[in-house]
Amino acid sequence: MDLILLAPLGSIAALVFAFILSRQVLAASEGTDKMKEIASYVRRGANAYLKRQYKGVAIFFTILFAILIILAFLKFVNPFVPFAFLTGGFFSGLSGFIGMTIATSANSRTAHACTKSLNSGLRVAFSSGAVMGMVVVGLGLLDLSVWYYLLQWFYKALPESERIAQITSAMLTFGMGASSMALFARVGGGIFTKAADVGADLVGKIEAGIPEDDPRNPAVIADNVGDNVGDVAGMGADLYESYVGSIVSTSALAVAAGLGVQGVTVPLVMAAVGVLASIIGSFFVKSNENTDQRTLLAALRRGVNISAGLIAVVSFFLIRAVLGPQNIRMYGAVLSGLLAGILIGLITEYFTSDTYKPTQNLSGSANTGPATIIISGISLGMLSTALPVIVVGASVLLSYFMAGGATDVGMGLFGVGISAVGMLSTLGITLATDAYGPVADNAGGIAEMSGLPKEVRERTDALDSLGNTTAATGKGFAIGSAALTALALIAAYWDEIQTKITNGGIDYILDANILNPPVLIGLFIGGMLPFLFSALTMDAVGRAAQSIVMEVRRQFKEIKGLMEGKATPDYEKCIDICTRGAQKEMIVPAIVAIVAPLAVGLVLGANGVIGMLAGASVSGFILAIMMANSGGAWDNAKKYIEGGAHGGKGSDPHKAAVVGDTVGDPFKDTSGPSINILIKLISMVSIVFAGLIVKFHIL
Amino acid sequence: MDLILLAPLGSIAALVFAFILSRQVLAASEGTDKMKEIASYVRRGANAYLKRQYKGVAIFFTILFAILIILAFLKFVNPFVPFAFLTGGFFSGLSGFIGMTIATSANSRTAHACTKSLNSGLRVAFSSGAVMGMVVVGLGLLDLSVWYYLLQWFYKALPESERIAQITSAMLTFGMGASSMALFARVGGGIFTKAADVGADLVGKIEAGIPEDDPRNPAVIADNVGDNVGDVAGMGADLYESYVGSIVSTSALAVAAGLGVQGVTVPLVMAAVGVLASIIGSFFVKSNENTDQRTLLAALRRGVNISAGLIAVVSFFLIRAVLGPQNIRMYGAVLSGLLAGILIGLITEYFTSDTYKPTQNLSGSANTGPATIIISGISLGMLSTALPVIVVGASVLLSYFMAGGATDVGMGLFGVGISAVGMLSTLGITLATDAYGPVADNAGGIAEMSGLPKEVRERTDALDSLGNTTAATGKGFAIGSAALTALALIAAYWDEIQTKITNGGIDYILDANILNPPVLIGLFIGGMLPFLFSALTMDAVGRAAQSIVMEVRRQFKEIKGLMEGKATPDYEKCIDICTRGAQKEMIVPAIVAIVAPLAVGLVLGANGVIGMLAGASVSGFILAIMMANSGGAWDNAKKYIEGGAHGGKGSDPHKAAVVGDTVGDPFKDTSGPSINILIKLISMVSIVFAGLIVKFHIL
Repeated sequence: MDLILLAPLGSIAALVFAFILSRQVLAASEGTDKMKEIASYVRRGANAYLKRQYKGVAIFFTILFAILIILAFLKFVNPFVPFAFLTGGFFSGLSGFIGMTIATSANSRTAHACTKSLNSGLRVAFSSGAVMGMVVVGLGLLDLSVWYYLLQWFYKALPESERIAQITSAMLTFGMGASSMALFARVGGGIFTKAADVGADLVGKIEAGIPEDDPRNPAVIADNVGDNVGDVAGMGADLYESYVGSIVSTSALAVAAGLGVQGVTVPLVMAAVGVLASIIGSFFVKSNENTDQRTLLAALRRGVNISAGLIAVVSFFLIRAVLGPQNIRMYGAVLSGLLAGILIGLITEYFTSDTYKPTQNLSGSANTGPATIIISGISLGMLSTALPVIVVGASVLLSYFMAGGATDVGMGLFGVGISAVGMLSTLGITLATDAYGPVADNAGGIAEMSGLPKEVRERTDALDSLGNTTAATGKGFAIGSAALTALALIAAYWDEIQTKITNGGIDYILDANILNPPVLIGLFIGGMLPFLFSALTMDAVGRAAQSIVMEVRRQFKEIKGLMEGKATPDYEKCIDICTRGAQKEMIVPAIVAIVAPLAVGLVLGANGVIGMLAGASVSGFILAIMMANSGGAWDNAKKYIEGGAHGGKGSDPHKAAVVGDTVGDPFKDTSGPSINILIKLISMVSIVFAGLIVKFHIL
Repeated sequence: MDLILLAPLGSIAALVFAFILSRQVLAASEGTDKMKEIASYVRRGANAYLKRQYKGVAIFFTILFAILIILAFLKFVNPFVPFAFLTGGFFSGLSGFIGMTIATSANSRTAHACTKSLNSGLRVAFSSGAVMGMVVVGLGLLDLSVWYYLLQWFYKALPESERIAQITSAMLTFGMGASSMALFARVGGGIFTKAADVGADLVGKIEAGIPEDDPRNPAVIADNVGDNVGDVAGMGADLYESYVGSIVSTSALAVAAGLGVQGVTVPLVMAAVGVLASIIGSFFVKSNENTDQRTLLAALRRGVNISAGLIAVVSFFLIRAVLGPQNIRMYGAVLSGLLAGILIGLITEYFTSDTYKPTQNLSGSANTGPATIIISGISLGMLSTALPVIVVGASVLLSYFMAGGATDVGMGLFGVGISAVGMLSTLGITLATDAYGPVADNAGGIAEMSGLPKEVRERTDALDSLGNTTAATGKGFAIGSAALTALALIAAYWDEIQTKITNGGIDYILDANILNPPVLIGLFIGGMLPFLFSALTMDAVGRAAQSIVMEVRRQFKEIKGLMEGKATPDYEKCIDICTRGAQKEMIVPAIVAIVAPLAVGLVLGANGVIGMLAGASVSGFILAIMMANSGGAWDNAKKYIEGGAHGGKGSDPHKAAVVGDTVGDPFKDTSGPSINILIKLISMVSIVFAGLIVKFHIL
């Protein structure tokens, strides 16, 4: 049997499973009328946002499609690229849409299920997360499968080895659609969610002194919507891109390594195996009534670990069957990727969870005021970059040399790609644990706003706290996989450029030696890009939050009876402001991400581009970890104080911790995650425009 | 005439000029008894600190000297290295000592001179800064000249081309002594100054509500001492290291490029020309009674610009005479370095001075509280990295290609070295404008504490504000020159390793291709090191500041009559705590900086080291700029509010701005500047231990 058939089959399995899960979630009761009403606000707001976003995206895609069509006519890009660009964007957008629809439907249902038991709540929230996870991997594999078979048919006249080279080369460029969509989803969503969150907190909590999630706060619904558009749709699009990117780049590296169809089979089938393992693992996620965080976390972990274990076992036989016993060392690359994913998660947890020393000590530094907790938090984030760098470094080295890189560079680089695929093979269930978080968070909000009894809110709080931990580890996973994917993309770019130079008979010396000035300058520019990108996205949050502050103040002043709870605030106005803000503020970062690789390529040539990609991966990986972990630790240090440490809620240390948390918000939910997109997108843009750059460049 | 003779002559000229200036400074009156008393506290504290620091340093130097002696016996390092290591450390320490002695003598004299006129005050403060600048370049050139002639004599039996190769290869390793001393001066001084500053502010200004520089605050003298040990001695050692490092690496690159003695002559003579130009330029620094910042800044700028202009003119003829008209293009490298130094200064000023939009806008974000000013400040710092990266990148490209790198890589790399030397040739006067700052700052403190009349304090305030601006631009210059020096050192390391491999008949493939896994992993590890180093130094400040907080609180409580001004606080105790803290906290960062390059070398080999050095230079340069500019902008945003904007002193925005300023303190004065040392020191350590690493390594 042709094993590649497993890819479409896995895709169908994922989508069917997602469908079944979503039916289960939707079958649960939405609870009281009040709960339905609040949920409908959130749902409507999220849909309104997505509709607006897709409009903006449509303009962007139309322009880029036109450019790609022109380039295709001029033979600078493969003729399929413009269409693949559209399908990638479409499927990525579709998975965001489905994931968000189910998430905004599951929040009130989770809150209602919590009236029964903690396990019921966990099941509803986790199932809705699993829908997202399954849709992402299902649609990703579907997109890849359809194109794979289409190109097989199109190139059927060619001999096999040439055909597979054409196919992988074409498919390598297909990630750009997904990348572009991810940019809008992650950056736009990130700006939206933090503008709403910061705006709601600054006026509501600090100025007016009303609690979080209070329905009198006009920005409270926007805040809930933000959780969905940022943490569900944005995260999904981010990982969709990593998933597709790692598979297509590894396929291209397989062909470059001379492994032909067999090599291409491995990443696709490993992805399919991962889908099945994720489905099986998801059945093991259940809890008892114990709201203890470690027990709950163990419940989620069980699912992920079982999936990872299954993948570890099956891929041994898979590699042996497809690549032959002589290449069994390649299995080491799979394991190193899987292991690196798990280790980065654990390291992230250590630095950001308040059950460990770092975050506990951080909360202590709130005793001397906001300045010291900020300094300590930044220092914690910086310190936390060391181990992940060593883990990813060791994983790359191991996978390279296990794959035989010492004697065959091509095989070594293929090994690096395989380790990225290995890490991402658990995506179905990892993303489920991650997308679960915002649902639980929203459920807590709905429980609060609709005045559910105390024990229900205790349950939703327990689920929400768990969501904070999985959000932090999920971010670690997203960054780690983005870095590995980016490295695989860089290696694939190198091969692609080499092929272009050879086939085109072009006079260009490809030399990625660090001391070659264009490479070195590229390194510097690439290293700076994540800083620039973070600055732009943080400023965007600041400006958008500022307009929310103005609006909330206005409503508090102008709507009579609002503070007494007699009038309803104009929630939609706040959602609208966030939506506009996110759309507008996204433009500059998007231009930077698309134009920078082109500009560097046109001036410094392909060597400069290689340097830029490496520099951005290095500094982006490190900066993203730092920002995510600083932000996560501040968040949990605040929660730790709210739990009674250092004077508890309302004390001066608590106020200082709130400042830390507010600074951390754009760190961990906007700028940090946006960097993942940046490093993949600039690689994708470089790959797509490789044909143009080898012809036109100054140096 | 042998032009190299200009180097010892320049050295003597610098030292003589420094002597004359110091006599002038010391001839000025110290003012009232009260002023003398306060100045003597600061002087005694600074001397006590230095004494203790030199003791700690002596232990470190003894250990490393012993290791180097052993390695010299085993022929892993050149036999002169252990002794050169000592002289480098000694001269670097000596220039710090002299600079600090004159600075601590000049503060009360500056305050007293301000009773006469603004220009008198400026002249005293600037002259004492110029002593520091001249001592640094004078002793640097002296160290280099002595060794150059000593080695000439020692190797006199060898034919010229071989002799010069031996000399430059030996001298290349001589920077490590200066680097190690700089580490202690910069990191220790940085920890001292900010522990004292943050500690004094947290208890004095915020808890007890007494003004800055109030003599009742027990940490106030420690704070003044800190300005001297951090910003004078630390900055001096940092730039001494860049100065020596850029000259020795450029000499080595000259030999590698086949330019022989002529090539070695260029950097040494350019440095000598720079000394003379700096002496001439310093006569043009004078002001009228206008306390407007732009006018004052123009007075300082005049001196620097005249020096730079002189260097630009003379080096044209110098290059033409030494390298011949066929190499006149090398002059482009000189210009690009000079220009890059000036541009980085201007960019820094734009982002950190409150006469421009960025800092003004930053102060506006204090209106919504500490969280938003922190976010905006970090974002400002990140944004400000883009232009310096482009400037340095363009400068490297220009100097490489102007020098002929397109056809001859060796010449190109020599050009990069020359641009670093070009930038640093103005060091004598640039450092003068920079070391001037702490003197003016201290003068202000003394004027305040000894109750001088209002118009005197207005003058010292004007000088102090100017010092803030020159401190910020000085930091930009220090970072820029450190980055260029580090690049020259990396290129020299590459040559050195190649020579070692060839001469030793060692089987090692030197391959700095970015896709070579050891290089790539090295890049990641190197990229992470500045983050780790910053985290360690920030934590160190936090811990040391914490002990100061405890001590100040204790004194306020236990010393009766202190708050009423009837009793004197125990200043020395605070100085002692800062000193101990700085010494203790320096150990871990020092170990990281020395061990990291060795560990990377032993595991990843020379290729990994190249990657690590490049990664650290890239991320270190960017991170250092970000931290310096965020810190500078917060400082000036606070001053801008104190000047009356957004409610002025005591308002809520002002309190928020104080939080920003406190966060910025370790950013700009400890961690940021320490990164300069890190990137040069790991290069130096790698160069010294190159012989060891090419023999022992895993990959």
